[in-house]
Amino acid sequence: MTATPGAASSPPAHFPTPSLPGSLPDGIARFERIPVQNVRPLVDGGTRPAKSVEGEEFTVAAQVFREGHDAVNATAVLTDPDGADHHFPMALDNLGLSWWSAPVIADRPGWWTYRVEGWSDPYATWVHDATIKVEADIDAEMMLEEGARVLERAIAATPSGVDTTEARDAVTALRDSNRPPGARLPAATSPEMHAFFAAHPFREMVSPSPAYRLLVERELALFGAWYEIFPRSEGAWYDEEQGRWHSGTLRTAAERLEAVAGMGFDVVYLTPIHPIGTTARKGRNNALHAGPDDPGSPYAIGSPDGGHDAIHPDLGTFDDFDIFVSAARRHGLEVALDIALQCSPDHPYVTEHPEWFTTRTDGSIAYAENPPKKYQDIYPLNFDNDPDGAYVEMRRMVQVWIDHGVTLFRVDNPHTKPVAFWQWLIADVAADHPEIIWLSEAFTRPAMMHTLAKAGFQQSYTYYAWRNLRWELEEYMRELTGDTAPFLRPSFWPTTHDILTPYMQYGGPTAWTLRAALAATLVPTYGIYAGYELMENVARPGVEEQIDNEKYEFKNRRWEDFEPGGSREGQSLAAYLTKLNAIRKAHPALRWLRNLTFHHADDENVIVFSKSRVVRGHRDTILVVANLDPHATRETQIHLDMAALGSGPDDHFRARELITEQTWIWRRDNYVRIGPDTHPVHIIEVRSI
Amino acid sequence: MTATPGAASSPPAHFPTPSLPGSLPDGIARFERIPVQNVRPLVDGGTRPAKSVEGEEFTVAAQVFREGHDAVNATAVLTDPDGADHHFPMALDNLGLSWWSAPVIADRPGWWTYRVEGWSDPYATWVHDATIKVEADIDAEMMLEEGARVLERAIAATPSGVDTTEARDAVTALRDSNRPPGARLPAATSPEMHAFFAAHPFREMVSPSPAYRLLVERELALFGAWYEIFPRSEGAWYDEEQGRWHSGTLRTAAERLEAVAGMGFDVVYLTPIHPIGTTARKGRNNALHAGPDDPGSPYAIGSPDGGHDAIHPDLGTFDDFDIFVSAARRHGLEVALDIALQCSPDHPYVTEHPEWFTTRTDGSIAYAENPPKKYQDIYPLNFDNDPDGAYVEMRRMVQVWIDHGVTLFRVDNPHTKPVAFWQWLIADVAADHPEIIWLSEAFTRPAMMHTLAKAGFQQSYTYYAWRNLRWELEEYMRELTGDTAPFLRPSFWPTTHDILTPYMQYGGPTAWTLRAALAATLVPTYGIYAGYELMENVARPGVEEQIDNEKYEFKNRRWEDFEPGGSREGQSLAAYLTKLNAIRKAHPALRWLRNLTFHHADDENVIVFSKSRVVRGHRDTILVVANLDPHATRETQIHLDMAALGSGPDDHFRARELITEQTWIWRRDNYVRIGPDTHPVHIIEVRSI
Repeated sequence: MTATPGAASSPPAHFPTPSLPGSLPDGIARFERIPVQNVRPLVDGGTRPAKSVEGEEFTVAAQVFREGHDAVNATAVLTDPDGADHHFPMALDNLGLSWWSAPVIADRPGWWTYRVEGWSDPYATWVHDATIKVEADIDAEMMLEEGARVLERAIAATPSGVDTTEARDAVTALRDSNRPPGARLPAATSPEMHAFFAAHPFREMVSPSPAYRLLVERELALFGAWYEIFPRSEGAWYDEEQGRWHSGTLRTAAERLEAVAGMGFDVVYLTPIHPIGTTARKGRNNALHAGPDDPGSPYAIGSPDGGHDAIHPDLGTFDDFDIFVSAARRHGLEVALDIALQCSPDHPYVTEHPEWFTTRTDGSIAYAENPPKKYQDIYPLNFDNDPDGAYVEMRRMVQVWIDHGVTLFRVDNPHTKPVAFWQWLIADVAADHPEIIWLSEAFTRPAMMHTLAKAGFQQSYTYYAWRNLRWELEEYMRELTGDTAPFLRPSFWPTTHDILTPYMQYGGPTAWTLRAALAATLVPTYGIYAGYELMENVARPGVEEQIDNEKYEFKNRRWEDFEPGGSREGQSLAAYLTKLNAIRKAHPALRWLRNLTFHHADDENVIVFSKSRVVRGHRDTILVVANLDPHATRETQIHLDMAALGSGPDDHFRARELITEQTWIWRRDNYVRIGPDTHPVHIIEVRSI
Repeated sequence: MTATPGAASSPPAHFPTPSLPGSLPDGIARFERIPVQNVRPLVDGGTRPAKSVEGEEFTVAAQVFREGHDAVNATAVLTDPDGADHHFPMALDNLGLSWWSAPVIADRPGWWTYRVEGWSDPYATWVHDATIKVEADIDAEMMLEEGARVLERAIAATPSGVDTTEARDAVTALRDSNRPPGARLPAATSPEMHAFFAAHPFREMVSPSPAYRLLVERELALFGAWYEIFPRSEGAWYDEEQGRWHSGTLRTAAERLEAVAGMGFDVVYLTPIHPIGTTARKGRNNALHAGPDDPGSPYAIGSPDGGHDAIHPDLGTFDDFDIFVSAARRHGLEVALDIALQCSPDHPYVTEHPEWFTTRTDGSIAYAENPPKKYQDIYPLNFDNDPDGAYVEMRRMVQVWIDHGVTLFRVDNPHTKPVAFWQWLIADVAADHPEIIWLSEAFTRPAMMHTLAKAGFQQSYTYYAWRNLRWELEEYMRELTGDTAPFLRPSFWPTTHDILTPYMQYGGPTAWTLRAALAATLVPTYGIYAGYELMENVARPGVEEQIDNEKYEFKNRRWEDFEPGGSREGQSLAAYLTKLNAIRKAHPALRWLRNLTFHHADDENVIVFSKSRVVRGHRDTILVVANLDPHATRETQIHLDMAALGSGPDDHFRARELITEQTWIWRRDNYVRIGPDTHPVHIIEVRSI
């Protein structure tokens, strides 16, 4: 927190403002004395909150200017949930375009506001004029007296307790008519006096912008590593004698937590754990008809055993769930639950609340369709027939899981439900449980993705899986760290249980290494789906999705085979992922989103970027160099923006590669050789020499 | 006005919306059922009005989308000053980015609002699904019955008086179970039924954006040709015997009006006509000391004869002013008066209201300075010591001139007075006199220029004088017709009495022809300063300003010498300017700002643009081809965006050049030869063949 000490208590000097009634229509804002325009960030014109997390730095900017020649200045003001103002002095970034900015930080969660105050700076005006006029001997005595009066006004406005000795001495010096004017001026224009005014700005005509809402959330809303599992697969085993599978349970899944935590993940995300319908159940590989032992998709929720507030009997009981959550917590993991607001035809809602579905003219309930495709195993909920009833029930259901220790919800297809519903639900939960984090799985058009984020989702899946080329990644990251960063926090997933892009199908182990490393370093939150370690890269023909999708069957991945001494030791990325997560935890620069800089490489397959952050006076800088071509080693020159690394243009620095633990001496222009035959990614800690 | 007849009276169908209290903090907007995002135009987040003039078309756009697969639609709604809604159907411009837009027109001045309504389109949803499913024989009977019910709901929602026979027949046809489904469907999906729904949209879940303010002003606020004079020069004559000048008067200046009107100008703009101070009066060419007969700058306002509400005795009386205004009106001219809110030391305010100035520590009043430069003939007004008093006095003074028939004010240096003052003044005047137009002479940084326009100025001087190269003009016009067009209306002046750029000093007659033609066709409002016709291109050494600036002396331009039979007949641009203004009046396309399209020319010195507008079914298109190099004739190929001309890509059209009255047959790609030895500008009327 770098608030200027004392600044908040420096009251704006009184200045008369017109009391005349205006003739403006309702809704038109009057201009303040000093115009403040285009405050950034600004989400939906200020009608929706900008977001940050506790301790996250972001930039507040505005155009601030004034009439005539007098000096103008600006302050960014954050008001905390208790109503206390925190002042951040702004700097003039662009004189011609009148842009001012300040890096700001809100240090705890809650509803804050931010505003920009433009103000008249009488001290700066006087210093400018007096320096020229005393030198030119124009009105010199009068300029010194005017300076003395500015200083007197400033002293009077300075909070009691602040030492004003130097300023008072300067007043005396300015009025010391025994000395020539040129000898008296420096007492009031000295570096010490500038420092005094920087610490205790003398602000007149203070003109605030509107105060805009800032929602500050906990750090996990921005920074975290997620690991997705189908709980029924963890501990599932195929009974050769009976010729059928035995489901894993919440208790056997809990045994996997040690390994997940051991790799350094922060969140374990469970696909739905509710009873699964049998009507029109899908078989393996999305077959229209399930075999008698097919477990069905956990997204076809609801059976006579219960609905979204129940646990599949094969997985266990709420006691087992509580045990799972406790085990996760012991390992430092939080638990995310999948929320898929749709029902199998066997869901209790179907008979108890048919008004929450769409009824067709023949009296039947409408199943999901994308004509001519039919999804007869799924009944979409209809939130329009009885919104009050449906909203309240969803809220009750969510609370069941919060009460059992779930702190994150991964929402399946939120873009198929009304945005207004999510806004209401997330706000209502946050009123009592501001710690809850919602991840939006809206693989849809940008406007809807953005709007769900504005409606309250803390995190969003992104198009990352389909951004593979350098220009694609650079363009997309500029959007995510720029225009959308105030409201949308990206979560990068190289694959999911439903997504296996051609790049991952054909890129070999290099692709799996590379895409995990990029996800883990480009953005603060990334996730993988269980099995990523094993590079399961075979697609179901005709779709960009794994063969034998775990949605429709059990998977026993035989993790023990990949352990030391196992039959497939060394064939897993687990050790690499463990390193990635350790680097993320050790380097605060990787905890932020908006601190990204791209650098240049001559070879268009090589991407170079850095993240930098100052923590308690120490600059932490991570520089990543990656070869995006998984098939060929590349040699190229890279050209670094040294200022973004905290270095001077001609400095050398120690480049410590954190995966291989090599160290090189680097400078602005460097040669790299990188590719499948080495490691596809350098993750470099920049250490000044 | 292209409002859909009857659409406004189609009431939104009832749909339950949740009545649950929200948990959102104050100031956070709830999402409506159908999200509407990023409505454009939007000025300062909707806190300041968008602007148009009566009959001016502009585009309202927004991102509109919804959950799931059902059809969404959108309407732009303008609400007139009497509260009546005017509906404009929107079209989907970009499916991926969810952008919809509609051209809209407000047909009379006043405070309107505009909003975008997103809505569910049950008819489109049904047509889409039924067409696929009936064809595939999936639920065919049920789909037809559902269609019958959609039509019944639509009929019930149709305003009484609308003929619904066809829709009712379609219901009957859909239910005619004697015929096969495929034969019944077309009754409800026919072009006639689509036309019915286009004319009477059946809108459910109607979700309005906020209603934003739209200030519609009279056409002269956007479109007009201005002519600037120093009234004292018109009729001034040098008395050889007495060796001194005799001032022109308002009565002699009135004699010039016939010629100004004859050239086709709409506005005659008078530099200040008030008494001029004698203290520290400036002499010719800004000399520090005036000679005994130097008339002084009309911008050094105020003498014992009066201040801003008085007329210089040499010019005449208020009776003479009334005669001038009447004469102007007879010639179809409106009168603009210069407002320069500054005082000579001799202004009555100085003694009567010293609180409206800045008093220095020695008791003296501060003159204008830009240290170390001094402007001792000018006392700036200070609006902060007694804002109520100063504001009210300025309002009173302005009313004096309004009461004497002034309808436009050209404001000198508005950027040296508080923006809040202008906003108050302009709004207060507009409450009683909405016809008054204010032109901002703020040659300053963009943020201030933009903000003055947002504060209420109807027009702004621009950077046009310094935009000479093609890329400069194209870039600047894209800004002026795009981002800033909703709030800033440009006025293009190739020169003013204070501005004579090197391009005009050295470009010869070609430059003067060219820059007038570009100003007159690129934007709807342009102006020239008297003497432009005579190409007065000699600068005062060291400044980009005319020698013998008319601010400091009388000028007798001897207009009669340039008349037919005069000694300098043919040496004036008057005839060319007359043609330009006649073309502007004859071609409605030139009355608008936002209808500009640039085309390509291979030679970077050749600029090509068009403006197009449909009036009562007739398309008016003007195509301009100009050689920006005043020193060399250019031959090049030009390549036209035929759609922007209202033509097909392979069409030919008749290109009628309106200056030379030549006609060519042109097509997409054309050869042009253009330059000093022909005319530097082709102004072409596009006529389809």
